[in-house]
Amino acid sequence: MFLENINGPDDVKKISIENLQTLADETRAAVINRISNIGGHKGPNLGVVELTVALHYVFNSPTDKFVWDVSHQSYPHKILTGRKEAYLDAEHFNDVTGYTNPNESDHDQFKIGHTSTSVSLALGLAKGRDVNNGTENVVAIIGDGSLSGGEALEALDYAGEYDKNLIIVVNDNDQSIAENHGGIYKTLKKLRDTKGEAPNNFFKGFGLDYIYIDEGHNIPALVEVFKKVKDIDHPIVVHVHTIKGKGLSYAEENRESWHAGGPFNIEDGSPKNKPTKPADTTVHDSLVELLETDDKAVIFNAATPASLGFIGEERQGYAKRGRFVDVGIAEENAMAMASGAAKNGATAVFGTMAPFLQRTYDQLSHDLCLNNNPATILVLNPGVYGMNSDTHIALSDIQFFAHVPNLLYLAPTSKEEYVQMFKYATSQKAHPVAIRVPRKFTTDGIADNTDYSLTNKAKVINKGSDIAIVAVGCLVPVALETAKAYKEKTGKEITVISPRFLTGLDTDLLDSLKEDHKLVITIEDCYLDGGYGQRIASFYGDSDMKVKNLGLTKEFHSDFKPDELLKENGISATGLLALMD
Amino acid sequence: MFLENINGPDDVKKISIENLQTLADETRAAVINRISNIGGHKGPNLGVVELTVALHYVFNSPTDKFVWDVSHQSYPHKILTGRKEAYLDAEHFNDVTGYTNPNESDHDQFKIGHTSTSVSLALGLAKGRDVNNGTENVVAIIGDGSLSGGEALEALDYAGEYDKNLIIVVNDNDQSIAENHGGIYKTLKKLRDTKGEAPNNFFKGFGLDYIYIDEGHNIPALVEVFKKVKDIDHPIVVHVHTIKGKGLSYAEENRESWHAGGPFNIEDGSPKNKPTKPADTTVHDSLVELLETDDKAVIFNAATPASLGFIGEERQGYAKRGRFVDVGIAEENAMAMASGAAKNGATAVFGTMAPFLQRTYDQLSHDLCLNNNPATILVLNPGVYGMNSDTHIALSDIQFFAHVPNLLYLAPTSKEEYVQMFKYATSQKAHPVAIRVPRKFTTDGIADNTDYSLTNKAKVINKGSDIAIVAVGCLVPVALETAKAYKEKTGKEITVISPRFLTGLDTDLLDSLKEDHKLVITIEDCYLDGGYGQRIASFYGDSDMKVKNLGLTKEFHSDFKPDELLKENGISATGLLALMD
Repeated sequence: MFLENINGPDDVKKISIENLQTLADETRAAVINRISNIGGHKGPNLGVVELTVALHYVFNSPTDKFVWDVSHQSYPHKILTGRKEAYLDAEHFNDVTGYTNPNESDHDQFKIGHTSTSVSLALGLAKGRDVNNGTENVVAIIGDGSLSGGEALEALDYAGEYDKNLIIVVNDNDQSIAENHGGIYKTLKKLRDTKGEAPNNFFKGFGLDYIYIDEGHNIPALVEVFKKVKDIDHPIVVHVHTIKGKGLSYAEENRESWHAGGPFNIEDGSPKNKPTKPADTTVHDSLVELLETDDKAVIFNAATPASLGFIGEERQGYAKRGRFVDVGIAEENAMAMASGAAKNGATAVFGTMAPFLQRTYDQLSHDLCLNNNPATILVLNPGVYGMNSDTHIALSDIQFFAHVPNLLYLAPTSKEEYVQMFKYATSQKAHPVAIRVPRKFTTDGIADNTDYSLTNKAKVINKGSDIAIVAVGCLVPVALETAKAYKEKTGKEITVISPRFLTGLDTDLLDSLKEDHKLVITIEDCYLDGGYGQRIASFYGDSDMKVKNLGLTKEFHSDFKPDELLKENGISATGLLALMD
Repeated sequence: MFLENINGPDDVKKISIENLQTLADETRAAVINRISNIGGHKGPNLGVVELTVALHYVFNSPTDKFVWDVSHQSYPHKILTGRKEAYLDAEHFNDVTGYTNPNESDHDQFKIGHTSTSVSLALGLAKGRDVNNGTENVVAIIGDGSLSGGEALEALDYAGEYDKNLIIVVNDNDQSIAENHGGIYKTLKKLRDTKGEAPNNFFKGFGLDYIYIDEGHNIPALVEVFKKVKDIDHPIVVHVHTIKGKGLSYAEENRESWHAGGPFNIEDGSPKNKPTKPADTTVHDSLVELLETDDKAVIFNAATPASLGFIGEERQGYAKRGRFVDVGIAEENAMAMASGAAKNGATAVFGTMAPFLQRTYDQLSHDLCLNNNPATILVLNPGVYGMNSDTHIALSDIQFFAHVPNLLYLAPTSKEEYVQMFKYATSQKAHPVAIRVPRKFTTDGIADNTDYSLTNKAKVINKGSDIAIVAVGCLVPVALETAKAYKEKTGKEITVISPRFLTGLDTDLLDSLKEDHKLVITIEDCYLDGGYGQRIASFYGDSDMKVKNLGLTKEFHSDFKPDELLKENGISATGLLALMD
């Protein structure tokens, strides 16, 4: 046992090079202990164990600085930098997050959860070093999948001009979350096949120095190269060939499904937690129906095809026919392509996870909405019910979608509303339409026949007087629960409204409320600041209507339980009733 | 004279190949006629005249589709597609915009003003063609400067996988707005020097087919290659070597200053309009003072160094010492680098034009603010006084900055406030700080000594009762003018407040207004929806205070006069007084 004596990188350096593989094996076992018990990112971490051991053997973190791209492969790094208990001991599993975190350790430079940022951030660290006359090494570790993102490519370009120490370790396991997409992956394959000798080297094309390591799990080979590039006086790419999921045969074989996930039995990889009910297929079904009924339909996605329910042969089939387009980690390109396709007569849909749409703000505004092309954007898992790590939250989708001219931003509550909104969006040619797809739909079993071409028409779900609650999409159930409790308490009905359109106000309805309402409460699961509710406060600003806006405080919330975070911000039946006294 | 008979691309095709250069000369003269009389983009248009003639000679627009990146080089294209009068006849100069515009002509596919979008948009058009079983050619024309942008690089990658017709014409004049930055430009130079034969071809690294044209002003050579690639069944890069400013010796020699600008005398290039007063140097001076007094200071910029006042030898000097970093057209990288540099002990400042910051929303949120690194962001020319083409407006900076956690967004009114805010931002280590730098500063000649570490403290500029106007930054003069007019009319004072912090409210001050004020009016030069004023409406929502928010309607406003657009939205002394009756 070596790992028990490892409390930081200095302890790694005390081990002889011959014994480093044993340390790596123990580190891998620690990773497996954690992920088999509580899940997490699997393949990415298993694939970088030897790489991480070699990095900490050669470099001197935290003086030398590592930046882990997307940082979901930082478990071995955490194990070797004083946080091994979080991998060995169930009582300490919650001591660490799944991403690098400077609050946990000086060995972590940044909180990182979005891809393709490491080379830029490392270049920044290097510039900071330079003005401080420092001599430390700055090392970015980036996976092949992340290379396709615009921020990474911009940074590779600037690195090709930069003239001081920077080491870019490309951890090439020939896999993104799903399979890679893009021409650079043909070039990476050629480089792997020729042990780095193929012509038209992608990295050299950016003006970068380059070295190749074929045996990415051979620690002496890694150590040799890292020693060679340590203290180098210019940027260099160290292209390392690794195996995603290394060490667990089922993970090596099924790289997409073993990218991340829940607890499993180590013997055979079978899941420990059986799903209690099948996953909701509403979005997937709507897309398949569109593809089958509209031969002009094209679905765009950026490296998260499973989030749309497209996997396996079905995905391959539609991809082969050019109807399902995964552009890889390249959200900007996907948004602009959707605009271009809509312009040229396609029924274009682009869907991905809400936090990653943050990188398409300019493309949404300039490429799509300025041109008013009728593409449909599916904003998956937005708001408080989306991901709950501060590296991945999406608590500002209303902020960056709702003010963009020409766009309709729709917020369904139920499955049936979503289906009707999607049909409207994909059958009209008047505007770009984005749909805020809740993580979980309610369902009332009754088809929605709303004509969504009547822009900004809100839905009155419950008709009362004195008090109205305007509840964005997925919060309608909270409003209805409040109305029920209020009726039980007072015998009176309150009004409950779903605005459905977040990009405008139903001014007729809001005006009519002035007749017999005194208070309008708005609830939304995004930040309060700049959100939907404040538009209503503004509308009523010079009237006698009282307005109370509820939303989330402006913080990078993390590790929250959605209903509890809402409750802390007053969004619960109890909290709302308290406003009505 | 051939041009007089050109009413569309069909007429270009009627001219014999020997006479096309004469048509090109006449087209260039038409470009010069316009730019010498009313200014505009100069070098980019002069450099693509022959290229454009050859494209229209070979391809069949609008069936074949051209996408002009950033589209400031589309004048020759407009001249050849039915819009020549706008270049020949002063009475028609206003008939066209400076950018492609589908409202003007079917030969224009998109409104485009931001760089690096053409390959993505073209890929989208190509996908639209595919599902419609079309056979047209799709041609993106992109300058070397635009290649460094993330969206373009993402699209080159996807193009390397795409398997149908797409022609990417790289118009390589070895110049961005200023000089190019990034390693790819070393590679492009090698390709030019070897007539396309150099190893590690940047484009082939993306998996793309490639052909080189050395004589980018030789129409027969261009026509030959375009004929060859027309109807090609896969993507290909046609790398064309051109001369920016071709045809005007002074423009060829001084490529940066001849990128764009005002009217000039053709004989010698001297400006027709002498500047009436020297340009304001407040921002530049603040940066130089920082550089000279803080040896840890680094200024980041993305291809618009002159917007910060850095030109010529001064820029070269700071660049050589690593203190002024132009990353090229790569705003995402600049924002993330600023975060990294601030993390590692630099005093990091990133400044560029407000519309281009739209492409850094994710980097602002995830790379900078999530990590709470104390970089300073200068948002240049935001709001209604910024650029006034719908392709370049920046009417939503408050929307995409003000809700981001950890950020302070400051809005100075005067030069003196800016100076003090900049000193605060660059001397503190508590937060990222962005400053909304107005295009024109007021000045009162009295140094501002405000302690901006007192977050959210607003400034009461005039103390009155009953009515208060809260005016964002550059609109304070309108509020003061209103107060003066109100006093003249009624003898009473109204309160005028500059919030200075747009990322939070001075709740103590706002609460105190409840004592002796009945109406709060907010004015801002961004969209009303999701803006600053609505936060104040929300604050007062359940009180008796009346609030009236004024801001711009949510549209892609274009070709407006700032004060008139404000007036149309009620933001003028007259408009405000009308609310006070």
